[in-house]
Amino acid sequence: MDWKAEIETAWARVKPHVRRTPVVEADGFGLGFPVALKLEQMQHTGSFKARGAFNTLLSMEVPEAGLVAASGGNHGAAVAYAGARLGHRARIYVPEMAGPAKIGLIERLGADLKVVPGAYANALEAAREYEAETGAMQIHAYDAPATVAGQGTCMAEWEDQGLEADTVLIAVGGGGLIGGAVAWLQGRRKVVAVEPETSCALHAALQAGGPVDVEVSGVAANALGARRIGDICYGLAEAQGIESVLVGDEAITQAQVALWQEMRQLVEPAGATALAALMSGAYVPEPGERVAVLVCGGNIAPDPLSAK
Amino acid sequence: MDWKAEIETAWARVKPHVRRTPVVEADGFGLGFPVALKLEQMQHTGSFKARGAFNTLLSMEVPEAGLVAASGGNHGAAVAYAGARLGHRARIYVPEMAGPAKIGLIERLGADLKVVPGAYANALEAAREYEAETGAMQIHAYDAPATVAGQGTCMAEWEDQGLEADTVLIAVGGGGLIGGAVAWLQGRRKVVAVEPETSCALHAALQAGGPVDVEVSGVAANALGARRIGDICYGLAEAQGIESVLVGDEAITQAQVALWQEMRQLVEPAGATALAALMSGAYVPEPGERVAVLVCGGNIAPDPLSAK
Repeated sequence: MDWKAEIETAWARVKPHVRRTPVVEADGFGLGFPVALKLEQMQHTGSFKARGAFNTLLSMEVPEAGLVAASGGNHGAAVAYAGARLGHRARIYVPEMAGPAKIGLIERLGADLKVVPGAYANALEAAREYEAETGAMQIHAYDAPATVAGQGTCMAEWEDQGLEADTVLIAVGGGGLIGGAVAWLQGRRKVVAVEPETSCALHAALQAGGPVDVEVSGVAANALGARRIGDICYGLAEAQGIESVLVGDEAITQAQVALWQEMRQLVEPAGATALAALMSGAYVPEPGERVAVLVCGGNIAPDPLSAK
Repeated sequence: MDWKAEIETAWARVKPHVRRTPVVEADGFGLGFPVALKLEQMQHTGSFKARGAFNTLLSMEVPEAGLVAASGGNHGAAVAYAGARLGHRARIYVPEMAGPAKIGLIERLGADLKVVPGAYANALEAAREYEAETGAMQIHAYDAPATVAGQGTCMAEWEDQGLEADTVLIAVGGGGLIGGAVAWLQGRRKVVAVEPETSCALHAALQAGGPVDVEVSGVAANALGARRIGDICYGLAEAQGIESVLVGDEAITQAQVALWQEMRQLVEPAGATALAALMSGAYVPEPGERVAVLVCGGNIAPDPLSAK
């Protein structure tokens, strides 16, 4: 697959619909070196997922029955938003663990929302049943070429904004975002995959020599808690080579607090996970190595302004 | 006074110490046109005030007795931060109305903090007494040339980042930020001063033909609630011409919610006040007029992560 061409095409498609999210250089965070951040949690619906959703909808024929997605929250919000913008109805299945902030967000976006007891896998099962019954188009959260190419536009955009880093740290759930980044970069920069110790599908796959099921839990689980890494991401990670590191929940929470205290950026745990790898020392750059951190999601629970 | 030269000098001084805050273009907010935003609440200590504080400390001889400031919160935090960075001790007087989030922030920065019953004027009185007793250097929150020149670096930086707006909307408290912007722009772009209906010292001064005392209250009062507009700001506003508009507390809160819901930027009421003028229709741009909004402060109360 010619990923560079796919991502360039995706970028042209999604550009009118997605936000060019800002970048900032920051010292601080208790580190002795500056870090470049891309604030992708400022994307529409609060995460990078809007990129993949728009690319999918704009590159395929959407049936009369509309869209269906299963989601820990962020993907569902993105599909609901993109669907509404492009005039498609959307049925979204979310597991209870998505939490009230994300569930409320999807409701506000006007989707036909179903909350499913249990975890992401249960929501995915319900979505598949609905797809079979109605002929609605299933939009996978991470393991489809159009999704990965869409998420890859985030890294393309960052380079277009003058990214100077040697190394980019990216949090990993099912692998759509990092897969797109690796596909775009083609080895031109080092990519470090950061996963929570308690939700590490990519790490487990790299150790096992192929995707395997893992247990998922922890503060970032509703965003990063994929049971199994996507085949596309795994293939790209294996072919291009990435470094995989793990961080604990406490490190994630500390990075989340630091992003607020030092930059007034309030993000969900998944959005602080890549920074946590630097702050905790899970990834230690070489002297002079220029590092960048992708801040990927901001749908914190509870919604800090939900009472207003 | 050659403000352009003053601000250029200030910019060279403060550059190593302040953050180059990001800019972003956004549609949404219920408006039919895009808005350029500068996220100055991402500045060190959560507001533009760090610019004026560093410029003051770097352009004057600081006495052995150190620094003293009176503040509704943001200026005090900036003086505490800049003082600590440059090795000066700082006594900060804040009124109770500053609220626990801002008071906690100043404490964390290591300043010698005194909480004073009442409003800003009471804190200022206490600061003046301390200055007379000890010889500490008083850093005024807005009505001093070094402060205004420091805040002016925010607009200089924004133009350096490629600002394309015809019109810039800026919230006004005592007038340091807007004074610096007007001083830098020299009429090259239209400046709209946005004040809460219940804290509108500049508006009252423009109507009265000179600075007058006003009552202050409302959701943004701890940041924008100056009793009297600074003479420097008034002089600049009168000489260069600005448009003055007012917004209600409800409009401010709605803009605050919109900044969170549409961009995941959690700001204090003062930080949403300029956007409120567009969302509420207090300022309606002409067709094709390109508008920009300065987001000036993010020290929301309660601190959303204070429990962590």
